[in-house]
Amino acid sequence: MDFERLFRADLEKLKEDGNYRVFADLERRAGSFPKAHHHVDGTDTQDVTVWCSNDYLGMGQSAIVTAAMHEAIDKCGAGAGGTRNISGTNHYHVLLERELADLHGKEAALLFTSGYVSNWATLGTLLGRIPDVMVFSDEMNHASMIEGIRHSRARKVIWKHNDLDDLRAKLAAADPDAPKIVAFESVYSMDGDIAPIEAICDIADEFGAMTYLDEVHAVGMYGPRGGGVAEREGIMDRLTIIEGTLGKAFGVMGGYITGSTALIDWIRSFSSGFIFTTALPPTLAAGALASIRHLKKSEMERRRHKDNVAKVRLGLTRAGIPWLDNPSHIVPVMVRDAKKCKWISDILMDQHGVYVQPINYPTVARGAERLRITPTPLHTDADIAHLVASLSSLWSQCALARHVA
Amino acid sequence: MDFERLFRADLEKLKEDGNYRVFADLERRAGSFPKAHHHVDGTDTQDVTVWCSNDYLGMGQSAIVTAAMHEAIDKCGAGAGGTRNISGTNHYHVLLERELADLHGKEAALLFTSGYVSNWATLGTLLGRIPDVMVFSDEMNHASMIEGIRHSRARKVIWKHNDLDDLRAKLAAADPDAPKIVAFESVYSMDGDIAPIEAICDIADEFGAMTYLDEVHAVGMYGPRGGGVAEREGIMDRLTIIEGTLGKAFGVMGGYITGSTALIDWIRSFSSGFIFTTALPPTLAAGALASIRHLKKSEMERRRHKDNVAKVRLGLTRAGIPWLDNPSHIVPVMVRDAKKCKWISDILMDQHGVYVQPINYPTVARGAERLRITPTPLHTDADIAHLVASLSSLWSQCALARHVA
Ligand SMILES: Cc1ncc(COP(=O)(O)O)c(C=O)c1O
Ligand SMILES: Cc1ncc(COP(=O)(O)O)c(C=O)c1O
Repeated sequence: MDFERLFRADLEKLKEDGNYRVFADLERRAGSFPKAHHHVDGTDTQDVTVWCSNDYLGMGQSAIVTAAMHEAIDKCGAGAGGTRNISGTNHYHVLLERELADLHGKEAALLFTSGYVSNWATLGTLLGRIPDVMVFSDEMNHASMIEGIRHSRARKVIWKHNDLDDLRAKLAAADPDAPKIVAFESVYSMDGDIAPIEAICDIADEFGAMTYLDEVHAVGMYGPRGGGVAEREGIMDRLTIIEGTLGKAFGVMGGYITGSTALIDWIRSFSSGFIFTTALPPTLAAGALASIRHLKKSEMERRRHKDNVAKVRLGLTRAGIPWLDNPSHIVPVMVRDAKKCKWISDILMDQHGVYVQPINYPTVARGAERLRITPTPLHTDADIAHLVASLSSLWSQCALARHVA
Repeated sequence: MDFERLFRADLEKLKEDGNYRVFADLERRAGSFPKAHHHVDGTDTQDVTVWCSNDYLGMGQSAIVTAAMHEAIDKCGAGAGGTRNISGTNHYHVLLERELADLHGKEAALLFTSGYVSNWATLGTLLGRIPDVMVFSDEMNHASMIEGIRHSRARKVIWKHNDLDDLRAKLAAADPDAPKIVAFESVYSMDGDIAPIEAICDIADEFGAMTYLDEVHAVGMYGPRGGGVAEREGIMDRLTIIEGTLGKAFGVMGGYITGSTALIDWIRSFSSGFIFTTALPPTLAAGALASIRHLKKSEMERRRHKDNVAKVRLGLTRAGIPWLDNPSHIVPVMVRDAKKCKWISDILMDQHGVYVQPINYPTVARGAERLRITPTPLHTDADIAHLVASLSSLWSQCALARHVA
């Protein structure tokens, strides 16, 4: 078997379709985020403004977070030195798990190395070990949930995105004796729409189903203490499990779940993806802890962030650039063509110093290619004006459809 | 369905079997590793010597590593701020991937968030996407490889641990036209035995199979530049893929694979576990980079480490405490009973200030419970004497079998 030939042929196909990914080699600059150095061809660098980061609130360069990280390195060193069970549990992990449980109003929490692993491992373990269990999964769920479900080989039913009638019909049609789990997200990161969480919980309750909510794009961002959309709506107690990440609004890295003591202890005890891997470095746990504690009390970042999202939307609308309306903080500018999307993104970077990565398959469906713009509280009015002007000039240049207000 | 009852019943069963895990709540102390604070009952702390860390060389507190981490935090902030594709690629990632490719003599390398994810995602993607592929997996392979194989649903054949005849027989019996991958480890971390890598590659070549080698417990430790056992034996070019971790001898966190340009680009382009997750924080990449560069040049840590492993073995032998002989750095003291193993470990911690986590199911098979002792270059002769004396007193106390030399 000529493996190399297979690899090269697949890569050629990606390139032909415009789906081959080129990573922008950036150097984030603490103190001047969202500005970054862009390394070009290994020699030159160029200054760019990042408009597609998931460090939504700029906490990744907050002095509160970085000071906590420095301190933990000085105290504890670099890595954790082991899996959680074998010498890798550090006091910061213990404190962080307590903080996360509190954030979501749950009895307990469990850390994973990433949000991806928390979804994959938790759903994989629940669905793999509960006899005869079935999962009801929103069709737009994130890859990490899909892979966890797939891994378990449990019976799965996909319900139409955010469609309550479809969810109810599918639960009603299922074996009434089967244990059931309804899995969904709060903020869907590509379209920025938000699930009707309470109504989903009502339906799940009717059928005795457990609820699993991914708040990855909402933690830190929504709710008076940054507990997510479920906190904002006062319904955190309705969810069996709330899952989140430390790598987006909290600005660091890592993932977690929160739930009852027994559930968390059970996942801790049986989940391969939790057990057999080196624990998060103390410095990451310390940074996340500082970030969460700060965002529990401070509204300023969330307020400024909202203002900037509104300013970007207004600017785009005035310039006639169509964006997908939604109730969250994400501003998708739809291009609906992989090659065009990449081309626009390249010109924005090269000629305007504006970095917005093209979002293509498999992150979104083919034909749903877009620029996904994520304003932060740290973008200035001048940054916003420059983004809008740059997009506007491109829209003229390549005769893209304008939105007529 | 009463999920809580199910969780509690499973946990009760674990406790009855002596397999319930209690994590030691530690505070690693930079500058005094392998000493740590042990937090007891949330109030007291106790000073302990850690004898079960996978920070094998103590690089987790090396000033070279922590300085690089501090610098990266000052330069770039806390997290990467996105997935590798969407604003999360940092210049440190690029440099680290180059360094790793060089370390293993390969064209290219790819970072993952952990060694677990690198195994799971790479094997899952290779086996999931290459049509009709079959995998030949050593029966003692790590959970992360097993889960990746399971995830792919590819045809799998388990060969007897390190058994060349069995591997050859199973390859010979398989469909000659099927693409084949032979997956194995160099140092098996629980028994400390080492695979006959070259002979395995010879057999794989006979059948046109790709070779996948996990060097997680060997990178940094073996070979003149810390490239692993394959480097020591001068056969890195015989492996199609060499996989490793940044979280053990390198002292930080993260995982990676190395291989040909096309292979790495293909995994980068198609692997869900690589694509859909926040990238490693720049500070971790910077720390790992410094650690690898140092261990490429410095033999001192490896030499001292070897000396200490020999001293521990000699001490145990003199005290008549049986340990499992092997050609690596791991010193397993077999207890073969889950409850007794936990009990010994508890007394070592409480009465002797010696921390060795009991290793029980599912990390090892039932009946193969053990204390897995990992000497580091930073343990002193006094530490070693104390460990041996503590174990010896316990061996007398509970009438455990002594080894008669
Ligand atoms: C909805 C959702 N869940 C989970 C994840 C994974 O989280 P992490 O980046 O922490 O791995 C992501 C994105 O990365 C996501 O968009
Ligand atoms: C053989 C082997 N491979 C892979 C891993 C996973 O590496 P990491 O800890 O970086 O996730 C481990 C242990 O954790 C291991 O023992």
